[in-house]
Amino acid sequence: MPNSESLAYESLTSYARETALLVDIQSALFWDERTYMPSVGGDYRAEQLAYLSGEIHRRQTDPRQDEWLAELEGSPLAADPASDAGCVIHQLRRDYDKKTKLPQTLVEEITRTGSLAHNVWVEARKANDFARFQPLLEKMVDLKRQEAEAIGYDDQPYDALLDDYEPGAKTAEVAQVLGGLREALVPLVQAIADSPHRPDVSILQRSYPIEAQREFGQSGAAAIGFDFDAGRLDVTAHPFCCGVGPHDVRLTTRYDEHAFGDAFFSILHEVGHGIYDQGLPAEHHGLPTGEAVSLGIHESQSRMWENQVGRSLSFWEHLYPQAQQAFPAALDGVPLDDFYRAVNDVRPSLVRVDADEVTYNLHVLVRFELETALFDRSLEVADLPEAWNAKYREYLGVESPTDSDGVLQDVHWSEGLFGYFPTYALGNLYAAQFFEQAQADIPGLEAGFAEGRFTELCEWLRSQIHSQGRRFAPADLVERVTGKPLSHQCLLDQLTRKFGGIYRL
Amino acid sequence: MPNSESLAYESLTSYARETALLVDIQSALFWDERTYMPSVGGDYRAEQLAYLSGEIHRRQTDPRQDEWLAELEGSPLAADPASDAGCVIHQLRRDYDKKTKLPQTLVEEITRTGSLAHNVWVEARKANDFARFQPLLEKMVDLKRQEAEAIGYDDQPYDALLDDYEPGAKTAEVAQVLGGLREALVPLVQAIADSPHRPDVSILQRSYPIEAQREFGQSGAAAIGFDFDAGRLDVTAHPFCCGVGPHDVRLTTRYDEHAFGDAFFSILHEVGHGIYDQGLPAEHHGLPTGEAVSLGIHESQSRMWENQVGRSLSFWEHLYPQAQQAFPAALDGVPLDDFYRAVNDVRPSLVRVDADEVTYNLHVLVRFELETALFDRSLEVADLPEAWNAKYREYLGVESPTDSDGVLQDVHWSEGLFGYFPTYALGNLYAAQFFEQAQADIPGLEAGFAEGRFTELCEWLRSQIHSQGRRFAPADLVERVTGKPLSHQCLLDQLTRKFGGIYRL
Repeated sequence: MPNSESLAYESLTSYARETALLVDIQSALFWDERTYMPSVGGDYRAEQLAYLSGEIHRRQTDPRQDEWLAELEGSPLAADPASDAGCVIHQLRRDYDKKTKLPQTLVEEITRTGSLAHNVWVEARKANDFARFQPLLEKMVDLKRQEAEAIGYDDQPYDALLDDYEPGAKTAEVAQVLGGLREALVPLVQAIADSPHRPDVSILQRSYPIEAQREFGQSGAAAIGFDFDAGRLDVTAHPFCCGVGPHDVRLTTRYDEHAFGDAFFSILHEVGHGIYDQGLPAEHHGLPTGEAVSLGIHESQSRMWENQVGRSLSFWEHLYPQAQQAFPAALDGVPLDDFYRAVNDVRPSLVRVDADEVTYNLHVLVRFELETALFDRSLEVADLPEAWNAKYREYLGVESPTDSDGVLQDVHWSEGLFGYFPTYALGNLYAAQFFEQAQADIPGLEAGFAEGRFTELCEWLRSQIHSQGRRFAPADLVERVTGKPLSHQCLLDQLTRKFGGIYRL
Repeated sequence: MPNSESLAYESLTSYARETALLVDIQSALFWDERTYMPSVGGDYRAEQLAYLSGEIHRRQTDPRQDEWLAELEGSPLAADPASDAGCVIHQLRRDYDKKTKLPQTLVEEITRTGSLAHNVWVEARKANDFARFQPLLEKMVDLKRQEAEAIGYDDQPYDALLDDYEPGAKTAEVAQVLGGLREALVPLVQAIADSPHRPDVSILQRSYPIEAQREFGQSGAAAIGFDFDAGRLDVTAHPFCCGVGPHDVRLTTRYDEHAFGDAFFSILHEVGHGIYDQGLPAEHHGLPTGEAVSLGIHESQSRMWENQVGRSLSFWEHLYPQAQQAFPAALDGVPLDDFYRAVNDVRPSLVRVDADEVTYNLHVLVRFELETALFDRSLEVADLPEAWNAKYREYLGVESPTDSDGVLQDVHWSEGLFGYFPTYALGNLYAAQFFEQAQADIPGLEAGFAEGRFTELCEWLRSQIHSQGRRFAPADLVERVTGKPLSHQCLLDQLTRKFGGIYRL
């Protein structure tokens, strides 16, 4: 005999699953837009996506959820937040409150300003003219400050924004961990830059025919665990991973005949995201128990497969003979070690998206520090370019001659995505700490890579992370899996060891 | 100052356009399912499509439309049914009434039975076992009889079903036109079958590399007027054309290296559908003024480009040199006339979807006559196989050794699609009558084909047919465009002239 709580739980979860149908439809249309949609279909697709956004928002803020949740929150179902029902109830409450705390007028104003600011950012970047972008960026920062106030926070306004992407993360804690990383990383990058033992990166710029790259990338993706019966790999201008259902994960990349690493490592990166999505429990699809924890944890999966696995010597001990077969014109007579060093080239640069495994973190740090300064009001938007350049000089020893390749390089701020950047660096830190634990838990892990065995790592990630859904906040998940809180030490140790060897530091 | 009628009109049309967003989303997801979706994504996609169907049905039967329509029907806006507003009001009333006349329980019962019957049909066809299919087919016929009663009709129950696909068409009139066609076609087919002058069809079974077929098909599609900036051509098991927005029409085909005609003429066929969809006025998208008239008129567009154009000698006078360049191994040394005769091979056969331009109509006639007999109760479902075979013997002089290639060959009846088949033959009749008019209106039409000029025909179709949306019922449109009512005479004359020449009758 169903009691009133179980009826409320059934109503709540059916409703959430139905909302997920629409979210996934939106993803499928987005994927289509980026891959195969004819060029002139864009305006109408935008109308379709806007309609779906409206419907999804209407559903996500439907007050019936508040009633079902209120009934459930006092019940035994909610007692353990890590149980199936407890996770669903606590996380749906979190989602509902975040969605409904924002006044509709503010949401619309942010959307409208983001749309305007995006277009102006495109022009300003092209014209190398920060002043043109400044007024709209000021407006956006002001709106996001209002958003933080509406959401609420214990310590700093930036906490409220960070929480959108990394639930429960606090600015002060993130600043401490990333600060520790920066202190150790700046001298490491300097030492690498000063090393006379430079890889020959021209190896990767030889002719790698695109069809062969596609096949090699696809077979590499399948080898490490991506299920092509439940996913695809296509071509877009900017690589992405997009889940469109519990058994349907779409990856994309782009190919350049003379840049082997661009496509291959972007494939491994997106495959890492895709393996996470494929590993979420399908029977919980549409519920928090079937969703990814956070952007940072998601990024840890992509980074681990891209870097800890894909740029390791043992990985290439297995795959390099196949690479030589696939690309004889480029790789005949090239020793494995030269190739391994080339795919691990590290050098300070201006543009984040082109940055390597080591310096990438410093690019992110610059943005994180500037964002927190904007939101604790120690920095004005007008002073961003100067502050940007000062930090690039200090951390990376480089300075952009233009704002286009400096403060204007990223799309995020124009769209109001403050609090997003740090998840990239957190992803690297999580990846390092998870990987260290995997090494401890799986004897001969890397020796296995050299023999083409990736299943153990895949299964370890499934059981430790993917299968958990949103049961634990990112910080708690890290501590549960690795037995210690997040720190910068694992990543730093791994980078120092690996690049110390490559650059003979 | 907007009056109450213009407010009602604005509400009605906004609502219809919003419903169209969902219909097009459903089309895009259907296209994705058939082209690129990973195999295991099917169950979840079915859930998404079912959700959208429910939403669309809910919207289409929303009683607010009845109120808006009631307010508008007495107003000057509705006075001329061929004006923009008049067409919208009259056709949306038609759609609303048809949707709401059916009891929800009957709709659900038909859907459920169709789903069951489809699966049983698949098995029965595989096992060549009509008896297994018979009970569900009986149930489906019974349900469709109930549907006809619920919808209502003046003369025969079958009118109500036919009207779904060919608005306003009457069984008796269709029977008369198709009967006239049959009487003349049976002896023509017999004469062709008896002719000793048979084309050498082995020419089309040589090696036609698939990539070359794809390029040749794509360039042929573009040459006759399909806009690839507003459409695509992909691969599926069964070819189709699917509009997913006002500027986005997706075509598909499939390739067989040793069957040149299969892909090429299916591309021309789908392109014909696609040119119609691309020619519908985009500013009216989502309203009856921006929609196709009927299945039969839609089929007339595909058939005209496939047959009257694509299988004409003048078409190949232009394209054959390019075909020889694209497929040298198959076509070197083959004279144009041999190739032209091969693509116009006519022979009585058992299976509709493989039938040629002439005999296809007789396949359709068999089905139309059996359907009308089922619905005027002069035939029982149990007697279908025997009746089927008798008609195939009489009209085509062939008899299937199995029901699998006989009465079980088509999917339509399992899904309850009674009234659909005749639109295939009506499409051929419309095509012939339109084409005759185009020949009269455009001097040197076919000489233009021989020089690669297809624009005049395309523009003629745009202005005469595509731009009209659903302003006129199919029968009225034919009479407006060609100055005379639909008859079988044009098609018969064209077939007699063309195949009289090819087979020297």
